Amino acid sequence: MKVFREKIELQSKGILPTYIDVTAQVRKTIKDSGIREGIVTVVSPHTTCAVFYEEFAHDIDETGTESLQVDLNNVLEKIIPKHVSKDTYIYPGEEHYRAVESWPNAAEYLPNGDRSALWNGDAHLKATIIGSSETFDVEDGQLGVGTTGYVYFVDFDVTRARTRKCSITVIGE
Amino acid sequence: MKVFREKIELQSKGILPTYIDVTAQVRKTIKDSGIREGIVTVVSPHTTCAVFYEEFAHDIDETGTESLQVDLNNVLEKIIPKHVSKDTYIYPGEEHYRAVESWPNAAEYLPNGDRSALWNGDAHLKATIIGSSETFDVEDGQLGVGTTGYVYFVDFDVTRARTRKCSITVIGE
Amino acid sequence: MKVFREKIELQSKGILPTYIDVTAQVRKTIKDSGIREGIVTVVSPHTTCAVFYEEFAHDIDETGTESLQVDLNNVLEKIIPKHVSKDTYIYPGEEHYRAVESWPNAAEYLPNGDRSALWNGDAHLKATIIGSSETFDVEDGQLGVGTTGYVYFVDFDVTRARTRKCSITVIGE
Repeated sequence: MKVFREKIELQSKGILPTYIDVTAQVRKTIKDSGIREGIVTVVSPHTTCAVFYEEFAHDIDETGTESLQVDLNNVLEKIIPKHVSKDTYIYPGEEHYRAVESWPNAAEYLPNGDRSALWNGDAHLKATIIGSSETFDVEDGQLGVGTTGYVYFVDFDVTRARTRKCSITVIGE
Repeated sequence: MKVFREKIELQSKGILPTYIDVTAQVRKTIKDSGIREGIVTVVSPHTTCAVFYEEFAHDIDETGTESLQVDLNNVLEKIIPKHVSKDTYIYPGEEHYRAVESWPNAAEYLPNGDRSALWNGDAHLKATIIGSSETFDVEDGQLGVGTTGYVYFVDFDVTRARTRKCSITVIGE
Repeated sequence: MKVFREKIELQSKGILPTYIDVTAQVRKTIKDSGIREGIVTVVSPHTTCAVFYEEFAHDIDETGTESLQVDLNNVLEKIIPKHVSKDTYIYPGEEHYRAVESWPNAAEYLPNGDRSALWNGDAHLKATIIGSSETFDVEDGQLGVGTTGYVYFVDFDVTRARTRKCSITVIGE
Protein backbone atom coordinates (compact mmCIF):
# COMPACT_ATOMS: atom_id res chain seq x y z
CA MET A 1 0.00 0.00 0.00
CA LYS A 2 1.19 3.47 -0.79
CA VAL A 3 0.07 7.06 -1.25
CA PHE A 4 0.92 9.07 -4.35
CA ARG A 5 -0.13 12.69 -4.92
CA GLU A 6 0.05 15.11 -7.79
CA LYS A 7 -1.03 18.72 -7.43
CA ILE A 8 -1.96 20.49 -10.61
CA GLU A 9 -2.45 24.17 -11.38
CA LEU A 10 -5.46 25.34 -13.32
CA GLN A 11 -6.33 28.72 -14.75
CA SER A 12 -9.80 30.15 -14.22
CA LYS A 13 -11.14 32.81 -16.55
CA GLY A 14 -13.40 34.84 -14.26
CA ILE A 15 -16.59 36.43 -15.70
CA LEU A 16 -18.17 32.97 -16.03
CA PRO A 17 -17.81 29.71 -14.09
CA THR A 18 -14.72 27.97 -15.46
CA TYR A 19 -15.07 24.23 -16.03
CA ILE A 20 -11.87 22.27 -16.60
CA ASP A 21 -11.65 18.63 -17.69
CA VAL A 22 -8.91 17.10 -15.50
CA THR A 23 -9.41 13.49 -16.61
CA ALA A 24 -6.08 13.29 -18.47
CA GLN A 25 -4.20 14.53 -15.39
CA VAL A 26 -6.04 12.01 -13.18
CA ARG A 27 -5.12 9.19 -15.58
CA LYS A 28 -1.50 10.35 -15.70
CA THR A 29 -1.27 10.53 -11.90
CA ILE A 30 -2.59 6.97 -11.61
CA LYS A 31 -0.03 5.79 -14.17
CA ASP A 32 2.81 7.66 -12.47
CA SER A 33 1.80 6.20 -9.10
CA GLY A 34 2.32 2.63 -10.25
CA ILE A 35 -0.70 1.71 -8.16
CA ARG A 36 -2.85 -1.05 -9.69
CA GLU A 37 -5.78 -1.34 -7.27
CA GLY A 38 -7.19 1.31 -4.97
CA ILE A 39 -8.93 4.66 -5.08
CA VAL A 40 -8.15 8.11 -6.36
CA THR A 41 -9.56 11.22 -4.70
CA VAL A 42 -9.75 14.51 -6.56
CA VAL A 43 -9.94 17.45 -4.17
CA SER A 44 -10.39 21.20 -4.47
CA PRO A 45 -8.73 23.18 -1.66
CA HIS A 46 -10.72 26.28 -2.69
CA THR A 47 -14.11 27.05 -1.12
CA THR A 48 -15.57 28.41 -4.37
CA CYS A 49 -14.48 25.45 -6.51
CA ALA A 50 -15.84 21.92 -6.80
CA VAL A 51 -15.11 18.53 -8.35
CA PHE A 52 -17.64 16.33 -10.11
CA TYR A 53 -18.09 13.49 -12.57
CA GLU A 54 -19.92 14.05 -15.83
CA GLU A 55 -20.16 13.09 -19.46
CA PHE A 56 -18.19 15.07 -22.04
CA ALA A 57 -20.76 16.96 -24.11
CA HIS A 58 -19.48 17.80 -27.55
CA ASP A 59 -21.26 21.11 -28.08
CA ILE A 60 -19.15 23.99 -26.79
CA ASP A 61 -20.33 27.58 -26.85
CA GLU A 62 -18.33 30.70 -27.67
CA THR A 63 -17.12 30.96 -24.07
CA GLY A 64 -15.66 27.43 -24.15
CA THR A 65 -18.42 26.01 -21.96
CA GLU A 66 -19.87 22.59 -22.78
CA SER A 67 -23.65 22.25 -23.17
CA LEU A 68 -24.15 20.24 -19.96
CA GLN A 69 -22.16 22.88 -18.08
CA VAL A 70 -24.35 25.69 -19.41
CA ASP A 71 -27.36 23.63 -18.34
CA LEU A 72 -25.81 23.16 -14.89
CA ASN A 73 -25.18 26.91 -14.62
CA ASN A 74 -28.81 27.58 -15.52
CA VAL A 75 -30.13 25.02 -13.04
CA LEU A 76 -28.01 26.27 -10.15
CA GLU A 77 -28.87 29.91 -10.85
CA LYS A 78 -32.54 29.15 -10.30
CA ILE A 79 -31.83 28.92 -6.58
CA ILE A 80 -28.45 30.66 -6.41
CA PRO A 81 -28.70 33.87 -8.44
CA LYS A 82 -25.65 35.86 -9.43
CA HIS A 83 -24.15 37.90 -6.62
CA VAL A 84 -24.66 41.33 -8.18
CA SER A 85 -25.12 43.66 -5.20
CA LYS A 86 -24.35 43.86 -1.51
CA ASP A 87 -27.90 42.71 -0.84
CA THR A 88 -28.04 39.57 -3.00
CA TYR A 89 -26.75 37.52 -0.07
CA ILE A 90 -26.11 38.16 3.60
CA TYR A 91 -22.47 37.20 2.94
CA PRO A 92 -20.13 39.01 3.06
CA GLY A 93 -21.19 41.13 6.01
CA GLU A 94 -19.46 44.07 7.63
CA GLU A 95 -17.30 41.86 9.86
CA HIS A 96 -16.13 39.81 6.91
CA TYR A 97 -15.28 42.88 4.82
CA ARG A 98 -13.26 44.23 7.75
CA ALA A 99 -11.51 40.91 8.39
CA VAL A 100 -10.37 40.62 4.79
CA GLU A 101 -9.31 44.28 4.79
CA SER A 102 -7.08 43.49 7.78
CA TRP A 103 -5.27 40.61 6.07
CA PRO A 104 -1.63 41.18 5.06
CA ASN A 105 -2.56 40.15 1.52
CA ALA A 106 -5.80 42.17 1.44
CA ALA A 107 -4.96 43.65 -1.96
CA GLU A 108 -5.17 40.18 -3.47
CA TYR A 109 -8.79 39.87 -2.42
CA LEU A 110 -9.78 43.53 -2.67
CA PRO A 111 -8.12 45.12 -5.70
CA ASN A 112 -8.26 48.93 -5.24
CA GLY A 113 -10.12 48.36 -2.00
CA ASP A 114 -13.29 47.59 -3.95
CA ARG A 115 -15.58 45.59 -1.64
CA SER A 116 -17.60 44.28 -4.57
CA ALA A 117 -14.62 42.02 -5.29
CA LEU A 118 -15.94 39.87 -2.43
CA TRP A 119 -19.36 39.35 -3.98
CA ASN A 120 -18.84 35.67 -4.64
CA GLY A 121 -21.43 34.24 -2.27
CA ASP A 122 -23.02 32.51 -5.26
CA ALA A 123 -19.77 30.63 -5.92
CA HIS A 124 -19.46 29.52 -2.28
CA LEU A 125 -23.00 28.16 -2.25
CA LYS A 126 -22.72 26.37 -5.60
CA ALA A 127 -19.46 24.74 -4.52
CA THR A 128 -21.07 23.52 -1.29
CA ILE A 129 -23.89 21.86 -3.21
CA ILE A 130 -21.61 20.17 -5.77
CA GLY A 131 -18.94 19.23 -3.22
CA SER A 132 -15.20 19.76 -2.89
CA SER A 133 -14.09 16.17 -3.53
CA GLU A 134 -14.98 13.10 -5.52
CA THR A 135 -13.60 9.57 -5.24
CA PHE A 136 -13.08 7.14 -8.12
CA ASP A 137 -11.80 3.60 -8.51
CA VAL A 138 -8.32 2.66 -9.57
CA GLU A 139 -8.72 -0.72 -11.22
CA ASP A 140 -6.00 -2.70 -12.99
CA GLY A 141 -3.91 0.47 -13.09
CA GLN A 142 -6.66 2.47 -14.82
CA LEU A 143 -9.21 5.12 -13.81
CA GLY A 144 -12.37 3.11 -13.19
CA VAL A 145 -14.86 5.10 -15.23
CA GLY A 146 -16.83 4.30 -18.34
CA THR A 147 -15.78 5.54 -21.78
CA THR A 148 -18.11 8.54 -21.56
CA GLY A 149 -17.13 9.59 -18.02
CA TYR A 150 -14.90 12.55 -17.24
CA VAL A 151 -13.66 14.30 -14.11
CA TYR A 152 -14.28 18.03 -13.97
CA PHE A 153 -12.93 20.79 -11.75
CA VAL A 154 -15.06 23.92 -11.68
CA ASP A 155 -14.29 27.39 -10.35
CA PHE A 156 -17.65 29.07 -9.72
CA ASP A 157 -15.99 32.34 -8.70
CA VAL A 158 -16.54 34.87 -11.48
CA THR A 159 -15.11 37.91 -9.70
CA ARG A 160 -11.71 37.52 -11.37
CA ALA A 161 -9.40 35.13 -13.21
CA ARG A 162 -6.81 33.33 -11.12
CA THR A 163 -4.58 30.31 -10.76
CA ARG A 164 -6.19 27.42 -8.86
CA LYS A 165 -4.91 24.17 -7.45
CA CYS A 166 -6.42 20.71 -7.66
CA SER A 167 -5.08 17.72 -5.77
CA ILE A 168 -5.11 14.16 -7.08
CA THR A 169 -4.27 11.44 -4.53
CA VAL A 170 -3.97 7.76 -5.33
CA ILE A 171 -4.08 5.23 -2.48
CA GLY A 172 -3.67 1.53 -3.06
CA GLU A 173 -1.27 -1.21 -3.95
CA MET B 1 -3.45 -2.54 4.85
CA LYS B 2 -5.22 -3.92 1.84
CA VAL B 3 -7.72 -3.10 -0.88
CA PHE B 4 -10.76 -5.24 -1.58
CA ARG B 5 -13.32 -4.53 -4.29
CA GLU B 6 -16.64 -5.96 -5.29
CA LYS B 7 -18.51 -4.81 -8.38
CA ILE B 8 -22.21 -5.41 -8.40
CA GLU B 9 -24.76 -5.29 -11.21
CA LEU B 10 -28.03 -3.50 -10.76
CA GLN B 11 -31.10 -3.33 -12.96
CA SER B 12 -32.75 0.02 -13.63
CA LYS B 13 -36.36 0.18 -14.71
CA GLY B 14 -36.44 3.24 -16.93
CA ILE B 15 -39.57 5.47 -17.03
CA LEU B 16 -38.84 6.67 -13.48
CA PRO B 17 -35.62 7.19 -11.49
CA THR B 18 -34.66 3.79 -10.10
CA TYR B 19 -33.48 3.79 -6.48
CA ILE B 20 -31.74 0.65 -5.25
CA ASP B 21 -30.78 -0.09 -1.64
CA VAL B 22 -27.25 -1.54 -1.81
CA THR B 23 -26.62 -1.66 1.93
CA ALA B 24 -26.64 -5.45 2.13
CA GLN B 25 -24.05 -5.69 -0.66
CA VAL B 26 -21.87 -3.09 1.06
CA ARG B 27 -22.06 -5.04 4.33
CA LYS B 28 -21.24 -8.30 2.54
CA THR B 29 -18.25 -6.76 0.76
CA ILE B 30 -16.89 -5.50 4.07
CA LYS B 31 -17.33 -8.95 5.59
CA ASP B 32 -15.73 -10.69 2.60
CA SER B 33 -12.78 -8.26 2.72
CA GLY B 34 -11.82 -9.30 6.23
CA ILE B 35 -10.94 -5.65 6.87
CA ARG B 36 -11.71 -4.48 10.40
CA GLU B 37 -10.84 -0.78 10.34
CA GLY B 38 -10.84 1.57 7.37
CA ILE B 39 -13.19 3.11 4.85
CA VAL B 40 -15.52 1.87 2.16
CA THR B 41 -16.25 3.91 -0.94
CA VAL B 42 -19.33 3.29 -3.03
CA VAL B 43 -18.92 4.59 -6.57
CA SER B 44 -21.10 4.90 -9.66
CA PRO B 45 -19.16 4.73 -12.93
CA HIS B 46 -22.22 6.07 -14.80
CA THR B 47 -22.72 9.81 -15.34
CA THR B 48 -26.48 9.65 -14.87
CA CYS B 49 -26.33 7.66 -11.63
CA ALA B 50 -25.45 8.69 -8.08
CA VAL B 51 -24.78 7.27 -4.62
CA PHE B 52 -26.14 8.69 -1.38
CA TYR B 53 -26.91 7.92 2.25
CA GLU B 54 -30.47 8.06 3.52
CA GLU B 55 -32.97 6.58 5.91
CA PHE B 56 -35.12 3.69 4.79
CA ALA B 57 -38.68 5.04 4.55
CA HIS B 58 -41.25 2.33 4.94
CA ASP B 59 -43.96 3.71 2.64
CA ILE B 60 -43.46 2.46 -0.89
CA ASP B 61 -45.68 3.54 -3.78
CA GLU B 62 -47.01 1.42 -6.63
CA THR B 63 -43.78 1.99 -8.62
CA GLY B 64 -41.62 0.62 -5.81
CA THR B 65 -40.33 4.07 -4.85
CA GLU B 66 -39.94 4.94 -1.14
CA SER B 67 -41.58 8.11 0.18
CA LEU B 68 -38.31 10.01 0.72
CA GLN B 69 -37.29 9.13 -2.82
CA VAL B 70 -40.53 10.50 -4.26
CA ASP B 71 -39.92 13.64 -2.20
CA LEU B 72 -36.37 13.85 -3.56
CA ASN B 73 -37.68 13.46 -7.12
CA ASN B 74 -40.16 16.28 -6.51
CA VAL B 75 -37.53 18.56 -4.97
CA LEU B 76 -35.00 18.02 -7.77
CA GLU B 77 -37.61 18.50 -10.49
CA LYS B 78 -38.28 22.01 -9.22
CA ILE B 79 -34.97 23.09 -10.71
CA ILE B 80 -34.30 20.17 -13.08
CA PRO B 81 -37.51 19.51 -15.00
CA LYS B 82 -38.01 16.37 -17.05
CA HIS B 83 -36.16 16.35 -20.35
CA VAL B 84 -39.20 16.13 -22.62
CA SER B 85 -38.14 17.94 -25.79
CA LYS B 86 -35.04 18.96 -27.68
CA ASP B 87 -35.39 22.41 -26.15
CA THR B 88 -35.67 21.50 -22.45
CA TYR B 89 -31.88 21.66 -22.14
CA ILE B 90 -29.04 22.80 -24.37
CA TYR B 91 -27.66 19.27 -24.07
CA PRO B 92 -27.48 17.25 -26.24
CA GLY B 93 -26.58 19.58 -29.09
CA GLU B 94 -26.00 18.81 -32.76
CA GLU B 95 -22.35 17.90 -32.21
CA HIS B 96 -23.24 15.47 -29.44
CA TYR B 97 -25.97 13.80 -31.49
CA ARG B 98 -23.50 13.36 -34.35
CA ALA B 99 -20.73 12.08 -32.10
CA VAL B 100 -22.98 9.40 -30.61
CA GLU B 101 -24.29 8.49 -34.06
CA SER B 102 -20.66 7.87 -35.10
CA TRP B 103 -19.92 5.45 -32.28
CA PRO B 104 -19.55 1.76 -33.18
CA ASN B 105 -22.22 0.94 -30.59
CA ALA B 106 -24.53 3.82 -31.62
CA ALA B 107 -27.55 1.53 -31.70
CA GLU B 108 -27.18 0.95 -27.98
CA TYR B 109 -27.66 4.66 -27.31
CA LEU B 110 -29.98 5.48 -30.21
CA PRO B 111 -32.44 2.63 -30.73
CA ASN B 112 -33.93 3.00 -34.23
CA GLY B 113 -31.85 6.15 -34.66
CA ASP B 114 -34.30 8.07 -32.47
CA ARG B 115 -32.45 11.13 -31.15
CA SER B 116 -34.95 11.57 -28.31
CA ALA B 117 -33.26 8.57 -26.70
CA LEU B 118 -30.52 11.01 -25.70
CA TRP B 119 -32.88 13.34 -23.82
CA ASN B 120 -31.44 12.51 -20.42
CA GLY B 121 -29.93 15.89 -19.54
CA ASP B 122 -32.10 15.91 -16.42
CA ALA B 123 -30.43 12.70 -15.23
CA HIS B 124 -26.92 14.08 -15.84
CA LEU B 125 -27.67 17.22 -13.83
CA LYS B 126 -29.35 15.41 -10.94
CA ALA B 127 -26.42 12.98 -10.69
CA THR B 128 -23.95 15.87 -10.59
CA ILE B 129 -25.82 17.48 -7.70
CA ILE B 130 -26.12 14.25 -5.67
CA GLY B 131 -22.60 13.05 -6.49
CA SER B 132 -21.10 9.89 -7.93
CA SER B 133 -19.46 8.57 -4.77
CA GLU B 134 -19.93 8.40 -1.02
CA THR B 135 -17.50 7.24 1.65
CA PHE B 136 -18.40 5.43 4.86
CA ASP B 137 -16.54 4.06 7.86
CA VAL B 138 -15.55 0.46 8.35
CA GLU B 139 -15.41 0.01 12.10
CA ASP B 140 -14.78 -3.22 13.94
CA GLY B 141 -15.52 -5.10 10.72
CA GLN B 142 -18.91 -3.41 10.29
CA LEU B 143 -20.38 -0.65 8.13
CA GLY B 144 -20.23 2.42 10.37
CA VAL B 145 -23.75 3.72 10.01
CA GLY B 146 -26.62 4.03 12.46
CA THR B 147 -29.47 1.54 12.54
CA THR B 148 -31.65 3.76 10.33
CA GLY B 149 -28.97 4.51 7.72
CA TYR B 150 -28.88 2.93 4.28
CA VAL B 151 -26.73 3.28 1.16
CA TYR B 152 -28.62 3.96 -2.05
CA PHE B 153 -27.64 3.80 -5.70
CA VAL B 154 -29.91 5.77 -8.01
CA ASP B 155 -30.19 5.75 -11.78
CA PHE B 156 -31.84 9.04 -12.76
CA ASP B 157 -31.90 8.08 -16.44
CA VAL B 158 -35.50 7.33 -17.39
CA THR B 159 -34.97 6.91 -21.12
CA ARG B 160 -34.72 3.13 -20.87
CA ALA B 161 -34.13 0.19 -18.53
CA ARG B 162 -30.61 -1.17 -18.41
CA THR B 163 -28.02 -3.03 -16.39
CA ARG B 164 -25.80 -0.77 -14.29
CA LYS B 165 -22.65 -1.30 -12.28
CA CYS B 166 -21.77 -0.09 -8.80
CA SER B 167 -18.35 -0.46 -7.26
CA ILE B 168 -17.71 -1.08 -3.56
CA THR B 169 -14.10 -0.70 -2.42
CA VAL B 170 -12.87 -1.38 1.10
CA ILE B 171 -9.48 0.00 2.18
CA GLY B 172 -8.03 -0.68 5.59
CA GLU B 173 -6.48 -3.25 7.82
CA MET C 1 0.20 2.68 5.87
CA LYS C 2 -2.22 2.88 8.73
CA VAL C 3 -5.76 3.85 9.68
CA PHE C 4 -6.51 6.20 12.56
CA ARG C 5 -10.00 7.25 13.62
CA GLU C 6 -11.44 9.73 16.06
CA LYS C 7 -15.15 9.96 16.74
CA ILE C 8 -16.37 13.24 18.14
CA GLU C 9 -19.64 14.21 19.77
CA LEU C 10 -21.45 17.35 18.72
CA GLN C 11 -24.48 19.07 20.19
CA SER C 12 -27.25 20.27 17.89
CA LYS C 13 -29.62 22.98 19.03
CA GLY C 14 -32.84 22.07 17.25
CA ILE C 15 -35.22 24.84 16.04
CA LEU C 16 -32.69 25.84 13.35
CA PRO C 17 -30.09 23.90 11.34
CA THR C 18 -27.01 23.63 13.55
CA TYR C 19 -23.70 24.26 11.79
CA ILE C 20 -20.55 23.22 13.64
CA ASP C 21 -16.99 24.02 12.59
CA VAL C 22 -15.03 20.79 13.14
CA THR C 23 -11.77 21.94 11.55
CA ALA C 24 -9.85 22.01 14.82
CA GLN C 25 -10.88 18.44 15.60
CA VAL C 26 -9.89 17.31 12.10
CA ARG C 27 -6.47 18.97 12.53
CA LYS C 28 -6.03 17.37 15.94
CA THR C 29 -6.94 13.92 14.64
CA ILE C 30 -4.39 14.24 11.85
CA LYS C 31 -1.75 15.27 14.36
CA ASP C 32 -2.65 12.45 16.77
CA SER C 33 -2.50 9.94 13.91
CA GLY C 34 1.11 10.66 13.17
CA ILE C 35 0.26 10.23 9.49
CA ARG C 36 2.19 12.57 7.16
CA GLU C 37 0.74 11.80 3.73
CA GLY C 38 -2.72 10.48 2.88
CA ILE C 39 -6.35 11.43 3.09
CA VAL C 40 -8.82 12.24 5.83
CA THR C 41 -12.52 11.48 5.48
CA VAL C 42 -15.09 13.25 7.60
CA VAL C 43 -18.33 11.29 7.80
CA SER C 44 -21.77 11.81 9.30
CA PRO C 45 -23.48 8.57 10.36
CA HIS C 46 -26.80 10.46 10.65
CA THR C 47 -29.20 10.70 7.70
CA THR C 48 -30.26 14.26 8.50
CA CYS C 49 -26.72 15.59 8.88
CA ALA C 50 -24.06 16.44 6.31
CA VAL C 51 -20.40 17.42 5.97
CA PHE C 52 -19.06 20.14 3.69
CA TYR C 53 -16.16 22.47 3.04
CA GLU C 54 -16.64 26.23 3.21
CA GLU C 55 -15.06 29.52 4.09
CA PHE C 56 -15.45 30.88 7.61
CA ALA C 57 -17.68 33.95 7.32
CA HIS C 58 -17.13 36.39 10.13
CA ASP C 59 -20.67 37.74 10.49
CA ILE C 60 -22.66 35.65 12.92
CA ASP C 61 -26.31 36.30 13.67
CA GLU C 62 -28.09 36.14 17.02
CA THR C 63 -28.65 32.39 16.60
CA GLY C 64 -24.93 31.72 16.16
CA THR C 65 -25.27 31.08 12.43
CA GLU C 66 -22.62 32.45 10.06
CA SER C 67 -23.72 34.56 7.08
CA LEU C 68 -22.89 31.94 4.43
CA GLN C 69 -24.85 29.38 6.44
CA VAL C 70 -27.92 31.62 6.56
CA ASP C 71 -27.54 32.07 2.81
CA LEU C 72 -27.29 28.29 2.38
CA ASN C 73 -30.43 27.81 4.49
CA ASN C 74 -32.27 30.34 2.31
CA VAL C 75 -31.09 28.74 -0.92
CA LEU C 76 -32.02 25.20 0.12
CA GLU C 77 -35.43 26.27 1.41
CA LYS C 78 -36.35 27.49 -2.04
CA ILE C 79 -36.71 23.89 -3.14
CA ILE C 80 -36.94 22.15 0.25
CA PRO C 81 -39.42 24.12 2.36
CA LYS C 82 -39.74 23.58 6.08
CA HIS C 83 -41.59 20.43 7.05
CA VAL C 84 -44.49 22.08 8.86
CA SER C 85 -47.40 19.72 8.33
CA LYS C 86 -48.12 16.09 7.51
CA ASP C 87 -48.68 17.16 3.92
CA THR C 88 -45.46 19.10 3.26
CA TYR C 89 -43.79 15.87 2.13
CA ILE C 90 -44.95 12.35 1.39
CA TYR C 91 -42.49 11.19 4.07
CA PRO C 92 -43.17 10.02 6.71
CA GLY C 93 -46.15 7.96 5.65
CA GLU C 94 -48.42 5.73 7.69
CA GLU C 95 -46.12 2.72 7.44
CA HIS C 96 -43.14 4.75 8.64
CA TYR C 97 -45.06 6.23 11.58
CA ARG C 98 -46.11 2.71 12.58
CA ALA C 99 -42.62 1.26 12.16
CA VAL C 100 -41.10 3.91 14.42
CA GLU C 101 -43.91 3.47 16.94
CA SER C 102 -43.00 -0.23 17.10
CA TRP C 103 -39.32 0.37 17.89
CA PRO C 104 -38.15 -0.45 21.44
CA ASN C 105 -36.81 3.11 21.70
CA ALA C 106 -39.88 4.73 20.10
CA ALA C 107 -40.09 7.35 22.86
CA GLU C 108 -36.73 8.74 21.74
CA TYR C 109 -38.15 9.52 18.30
CA LEU C 110 -41.74 10.26 19.31
CA PRO C 111 -41.81 12.18 22.59
CA ASN C 112 -45.33 11.89 24.04
CA GLY C 113 -46.31 9.88 20.97
CA ASP C 114 -46.45 13.09 18.93
CA ARG C 115 -46.13 12.10 15.27
CA SER C 116 -45.10 15.63 14.28
CA ALA C 117 -41.74 14.82 15.88
CA LEU C 118 -41.02 12.88 12.67
CA TRP C 119 -41.59 15.86 10.39
CA ASN C 120 -37.96 16.15 9.38
CA GLY C 121 -38.25 15.26 5.70
CA ASP C 122 -36.67 18.63 4.89
CA ALA C 123 -33.56 17.64 6.85
CA HIS C 124 -33.28 14.27 5.09
CA LEU C 125 -33.48 15.89 1.66
CA LYS C 126 -31.02 18.68 2.45
CA ALA C 127 -28.52 16.18 3.82
CA THR C 128 -28.81 14.07 0.65
CA ILE C 129 -28.03 17.07 -1.53
CA ILE C 130 -25.05 18.23 0.54
CA GLY C 131 -23.73 14.70 1.15
CA SER C 132 -22.77 12.67 4.18
CA SER C 133 -18.99 12.66 3.68
CA GLU C 134 -16.16 14.79 2.39
CA THR C 135 -12.55 13.84 1.75
CA PHE C 136 -9.52 16.09 2.23
CA ASP C 137 -5.78 15.80 1.77
CA VAL C 138 -3.30 15.09 4.53
CA GLU C 139 -0.10 16.69 3.33
CA ASP C 140 3.14 16.94 5.28
CA GLY C 141 1.19 16.08 8.43
CA GLN C 142 -1.30 18.92 7.92
CA LEU C 143 -4.88 19.27 6.70
CA GLY C 144 -4.51 20.19 3.03
CA VAL C 145 -6.81 23.19 2.83
CA GLY C 146 -6.16 26.86 2.21
CA THR C 147 -6.09 29.41 5.03
CA THR C 148 -9.72 30.35 4.48
CA GLY C 149 -11.06 26.78 4.28
CA TYR C 150 -12.99 25.07 7.07
CA VAL C 151 -14.75 21.76 7.54
CA TYR C 152 -18.35 21.96 8.71
CA PHE C 153 -20.75 19.42 10.12
CA VAL C 154 -24.41 20.40 9.85
CA ASP C 155 -27.47 18.93 11.50
CA PHE C 156 -30.45 19.98 9.37
CA ASP C 157 -32.92 18.33 11.75
CA VAL C 158 -34.75 21.08 13.63
CA THR C 159 -37.27 18.90 15.43
CA ARG C 160 -35.20 18.75 18.60
CA ALA C 161 -31.73 19.24 20.09
CA ARG C 162 -29.58 16.15 20.43
CA THR C 163 -26.08 14.75 20.64
CA ARG C 164 -24.62 13.78 17.27
CA LYS C 165 -21.52 11.90 16.20
CA CYS C 166 -19.01 12.73 13.50
CA SER C 167 -16.26 10.39 12.41
CA ILE C 168 -12.79 11.51 11.29
CA THR C 169 -10.64 8.84 9.65
CA VAL C 170 -7.06 9.35 8.52
CA ILE C 171 -5.51 6.86 6.10
CA GLY C 172 -1.92 7.14 4.96
CA GLU C 173 1.66 6.75 5.97
